Amino acid sequence: MTKDGPISFAVMLGSLRKASFNGIVARSLQGLAPDGVTIRMLGSVGALPIYDADIQADGFPAEVTAMADAVRAADGVILVSPEYNYSIPGGLKNAIDWLSRLPNQPFAGKPVALQTASMSPLGGVRCQYHLRQALVFLDARILNKPEVIIGAVHTKVDAAADTLTDETTRGFIKAQLEAFSAYARRHHG
Amino acid sequence: MTKDGPISFAVMLGSLRKASFNGIVARSLQGLAPDGVTIRMLGSVGALPIYDADIQADGFPAEVTAMADAVRAADGVILVSPEYNYSIPGGLKNAIDWLSRLPNQPFAGKPVALQTASMSPLGGVRCQYHLRQALVFLDARILNKPEVIIGAVHTKVDAAADTLTDETTRGFIKAQLEAFSAYARRHHG
Amino acid sequence: MTKDGPISFAVMLGSLRKASFNGIVARSLQGLAPDGVTIRMLGSVGALPIYDADIQADGFPAEVTAMADAVRAADGVILVSPEYNYSIPGGLKNAIDWLSRLPNQPFAGKPVALQTASMSPLGGVRCQYHLRQALVFLDARILNKPEVIIGAVHTKVDAAADTLTDETTRGFIKAQLEAFSAYARRHHG
Amino acid sequence: MTKDGPISFAVMLGSLRKASFNGIVARSLQGLAPDGVTIRMLGSVGALPIYDADIQADGFPAEVTAMADAVRAADGVILVSPEYNYSIPGGLKNAIDWLSRLPNQPFAGKPVALQTASMSPLGGVRCQYHLRQALVFLDARILNKPEVIIGAVHTKVDAAADTLTDETTRGFIKAQLEAFSAYARRHHG
Repeated sequence: MTKDGPISFAVMLGSLRKASFNGIVARSLQGLAPDGVTIRMLGSVGALPIYDADIQADGFPAEVTAMADAVRAADGVILVSPEYNYSIPGGLKNAIDWLSRLPNQPFAGKPVALQTASMSPLGGVRCQYHLRQALVFLDARILNKPEVIIGAVHTKVDAAADTLTDETTRGFIKAQLEAFSAYARRHHG
Repeated sequence: MTKDGPISFAVMLGSLRKASFNGIVARSLQGLAPDGVTIRMLGSVGALPIYDADIQADGFPAEVTAMADAVRAADGVILVSPEYNYSIPGGLKNAIDWLSRLPNQPFAGKPVALQTASMSPLGGVRCQYHLRQALVFLDARILNKPEVIIGAVHTKVDAAADTLTDETTRGFIKAQLEAFSAYARRHHG
Repeated sequence: MTKDGPISFAVMLGSLRKASFNGIVARSLQGLAPDGVTIRMLGSVGALPIYDADIQADGFPAEVTAMADAVRAADGVILVSPEYNYSIPGGLKNAIDWLSRLPNQPFAGKPVALQTASMSPLGGVRCQYHLRQALVFLDARILNKPEVIIGAVHTKVDAAADTLTDETTRGFIKAQLEAFSAYARRHHG
Repeated sequence: MTKDGPISFAVMLGSLRKASFNGIVARSLQGLAPDGVTIRMLGSVGALPIYDADIQADGFPAEVTAMADAVRAADGVILVSPEYNYSIPGGLKNAIDWLSRLPNQPFAGKPVALQTASMSPLGGVRCQYHLRQALVFLDARILNKPEVIIGAVHTKVDAAADTLTDETTRGFIKAQLEAFSAYARRHHG
């Protein structure tokens, strides 16, 4: 199935820090999106308890089901995250773990794009392939390219204005959002 | 430096479920350890908040510093974990992320062994190499072999007795604990 | 674009050994394929020299261009391979490396499915995610599921008859070939 | 066991191209090594056939046994390599695959350090963790840190002089060779 008309993406953010560089990137996405594409932030991954099957047995937390509903309602999900210890931040992985346990698993068949940013020149790249491996199990439809890997992110934002300012990086992200929009329309439903 | 005499290992458990198969494995370790080796469980990774640098800026949570102290005091750490979504459980990764931020980082130079268990024949193996990648950054001293990868774990425990019963698996674990004890003594300090 | 009517898949085999278990699996695929699906073996990855950009500068070897043409002509590629040293066999990776250098790169947009087999219970699974990572760069369209991971393969074949005999495994492969056929038709061109 | 006095390292190079940037890095290592450390290049990985167990059954090729002997004779191995398709170059992996099949497996217990270089800012980093995973199986003793990941390598060499010229990078490599020398002496035998 393909979809014409407006589409929406949900952003899951891997960092909780208020002044997070990845947060700045995430909040800059709407301004870089093609016409007809709405980009909304999901709730904080920090609002979820650590996954515990005993909690699940008593009922999924409201924050989990709300996040899952928002993922299901979106035409695609953009994961924007730092790399922690050469891998996925625990909080982001924990949110993915919770969502993965739901009936009508929300990532199944869902288009997903990845963006990582860090102050190092490597831009958090090591996180991306661990996320991809997790998303195989979830049967998400993961965009291959273009990859968004933002090194030296602290030099590419205006923190006071809460905006990504580096034109080259803005161009890369625009290109990814264009490609992801086409991909999400093509892989719809 | 090497160490003779008694040594102790701390176990970090990746699952919170009370009846967790990995928990049964973890609680069986003391009974499989060589003479002179004490094995203690660390506090639950579920007791930590999701990592947030803004929380850190206000001071590390007491659960984090307690876990870090216990890791520092141990002669080695054994990570016992299920695989969630082909990777590290978010809660376990979150605990590692917290510890990684401390001054006098507790995993630096620390001997570490890995054990994963799952009901699938694959025994959680995909989790192990993601853990290894994270531990490179932390500069832990990760035991290569023997690897402990327990498939079909539900057929290998007596849940009522809270014990790992499968003799072959008990033998593998004994062999790893022997090797890890020698490794930890040799790589001490 | 979608494609109706007959389709064909090309199989790239990661092992050179004549009696290779993975070879038996590969040669069993046609018999497990849905109607309208032809499955052909590509030339041996052992016929290619080790990749050398200086050789490339003098012209791609004929074996490389022949393999690339066969990949381009196929509606999908099935990689069937053992795991060597917890990763991709060097020979298979070398073939992928050669193909990746061609203009009109043959894996770009190409549907790909993975199958690994080994005598161990783990079935070569560690090879699969390294292959997936390489295929991201190549922009292949990699089937997520069902995954084919054949453990204890020596108990599941009739070597004399050169056939995969285990009914459960045959069922898994049939299911993957069904899913892959639908996927390849849907992601055509 | 520890070793005092002179030690020697063997370099296995992942690229065959005569003007390879990684080759320039590899040939610059002796000039960056601490006193008492000799660094020798192993034979080309391009001299080995693609691994084939049927060839092995007829006897290991002379190039394989020669490379294995040189690895065994060295106090440590430095792998210097580009990243091909987000992973290990097939030729380098093929050499590792061959060596892994020998009795008295030459990487067992052998100290190993990794260096990757590429023209991209990411410096071939994706290759390093695939190499680490393979080396776990081989039971090599892999140096954690400092990691050598050389981005934009074409701006950091004098190709005509066949030398790595960038002072910052030379400093990183010196630091790694210092650390690796201490590590190899400490983990000897």
